[in-house]
Amino acid sequence: MSGQRLSNLELVALCDNYAYKGLDEGLYKLYLPNDQRPHGWLFASNVQRMPWSEDFVIDHGRRTIRLRGHANASSASTACNSAFAEVINNAIDKDIFRTLNKQHSEMFSILGANYPVQLERYAADLFGITARGAHLTVYTMTGDGMRIWVPRRSMSLFTYPGKLDTTVAGGVTAGETPMQNIIREAQEEASLPAELIEKHIRPTGVLTYISYELEKPGGMESCVVPDVIFVFDLEVDANVTPVPEDGEVKEFYLMSVDEVKEALAKEDFKTNSAVVMIDFFIRHGIITPDNEKDYVEIVQRMHRRLPFPVTPDQKI
Amino acid sequence: MSGQRLSNLELVALCDNYAYKGLDEGLYKLYLPNDQRPHGWLFASNVQRMPWSEDFVIDHGRRTIRLRGHANASSASTACNSAFAEVINNAIDKDIFRTLNKQHSEMFSILGANYPVQLERYAADLFGITARGAHLTVYTMTGDGMRIWVPRRSMSLFTYPGKLDTTVAGGVTAGETPMQNIIREAQEEASLPAELIEKHIRPTGVLTYISYELEKPGGMESCVVPDVIFVFDLEVDANVTPVPEDGEVKEFYLMSVDEVKEALAKEDFKTNSAVVMIDFFIRHGIITPDNEKDYVEIVQRMHRRLPFPVTPDQKI
Repeated sequence: MSGQRLSNLELVALCDNYAYKGLDEGLYKLYLPNDQRPHGWLFASNVQRMPWSEDFVIDHGRRTIRLRGHANASSASTACNSAFAEVINNAIDKDIFRTLNKQHSEMFSILGANYPVQLERYAADLFGITARGAHLTVYTMTGDGMRIWVPRRSMSLFTYPGKLDTTVAGGVTAGETPMQNIIREAQEEASLPAELIEKHIRPTGVLTYISYELEKPGGMESCVVPDVIFVFDLEVDANVTPVPEDGEVKEFYLMSVDEVKEALAKEDFKTNSAVVMIDFFIRHGIITPDNEKDYVEIVQRMHRRLPFPVTPDQKI
Repeated sequence: MSGQRLSNLELVALCDNYAYKGLDEGLYKLYLPNDQRPHGWLFASNVQRMPWSEDFVIDHGRRTIRLRGHANASSASTACNSAFAEVINNAIDKDIFRTLNKQHSEMFSILGANYPVQLERYAADLFGITARGAHLTVYTMTGDGMRIWVPRRSMSLFTYPGKLDTTVAGGVTAGETPMQNIIREAQEEASLPAELIEKHIRPTGVLTYISYELEKPGGMESCVVPDVIFVFDLEVDANVTPVPEDGEVKEFYLMSVDEVKEALAKEDFKTNSAVVMIDFFIRHGIITPDNEKDYVEIVQRMHRRLPFPVTPDQKI
């Protein structure tokens, strides 16, 4: 960690780091059957290594990958699900991609598909399919101002070990809503009872951005990940205390606004959780047009229009 | 008014109605001296009629208009201000544009310019320069849920007569901040004292979109208006009542959330005030990912990335 301090715009730009012009030229576009809208972007290096089946039609000239699906499947959904599962299982068995970490993970829905399509969550990154998460910020008002519950991630986590995070966060799996996801994760990660969440939680918006990462030696593969994060607020009484439960969190701190700002500037937060915190500060009137010169640009960038559909039948 | 009911996405699309692809082909781009970033889009029909001076270099092939500024001005700011003033005064005197309404109006700053540049607010629309407004939603919590103070615009207003509106709204003039604008407008339009506003107001974000209107017979000229609206919330006690002051408001209603939703669906709100209301409902957990299928698309579209700079030195 350097001694450099980052501005809020620089923090957002670390997360929304895919250029706004020109970069998509080298990427392959992923199409589902009977759908003219792309649902993902793949790096050529990953296209080369993926153990494709006959279900995928690859056009290297046009840089497109079209899913044909199993011919004798009973529906477009099962055709697509089977095709993805076969290729991904094969890639996991052969240990082709570090991103897959030799593991099967949770199932994940393709946002905006015209019929339900699922694939393994880690694999979605390789296909450049839009990820979907939910983040909950838990805070309490004291005589001395707002305090925010901030966890430090376990050192044993695969991604962002030891970084500060949103109070509760998770990837929305197939078949659950963002709200259901948060209720489940709040119990698993922070021992917060479902009744408390359900009674007082407030959905407050959604953040969208595109992250882009080039392969580093020994690291995960290059990928471009469009992301959708549903954000929620929960104000609690001073006697409510989150407690680590499933080993993903090392411990929870009750931090002042100034302490959170300091940790943000020092890049001590997980990249996208920093953006969630900045959005929280904007909505709560802590970051304002008067104290943040990049206010408009920050808000635009954390709500980036994705080049992929977010609802069925959406034109893009 | 038809009996048709509009969805929230349709309401946002009425406001953010400039296409995401291809439409800018016929428009002229406006450039300031020593700045490679365009600051506005003009319709060819308005370029033809504008009484340009020598200070503007017009290239019909490239469809660009470059401001040279008065050669002997003491600074880039005064050069640009004088050049705009001369052309606009001339257009007002000759009554060329209905948009100008034969009137001088308030001065307005070009957002994101590298040095301060001002021109008359009505004229900014003809140049397609980004407009800047501030909207304040005043609400109160009752035993029976939230109530929102909603004004009906005077029938004598030039734009949107008789429509419902945000509690307080105004165009941010040169030299004032969005917050200063709201404090001034809250006194002028609603008789709300500055002390009340200053103590309890909360800046909660900014909305960005592009409106596009084609000339109608007897109506204002075709124009494309990128817009930046700073939004603020103010929760008040039940005994605080806004009162019309300057004639812009016919009367104020204290409406329930359901009444506001009904009025929105019936298109009874001013176009951009409907978007402000939808954003308010999203931030307050009234419109949620569970009850609004277009949630993500709505949030993206009300935070559209503008093709013009919003801060000095911003790359676009």
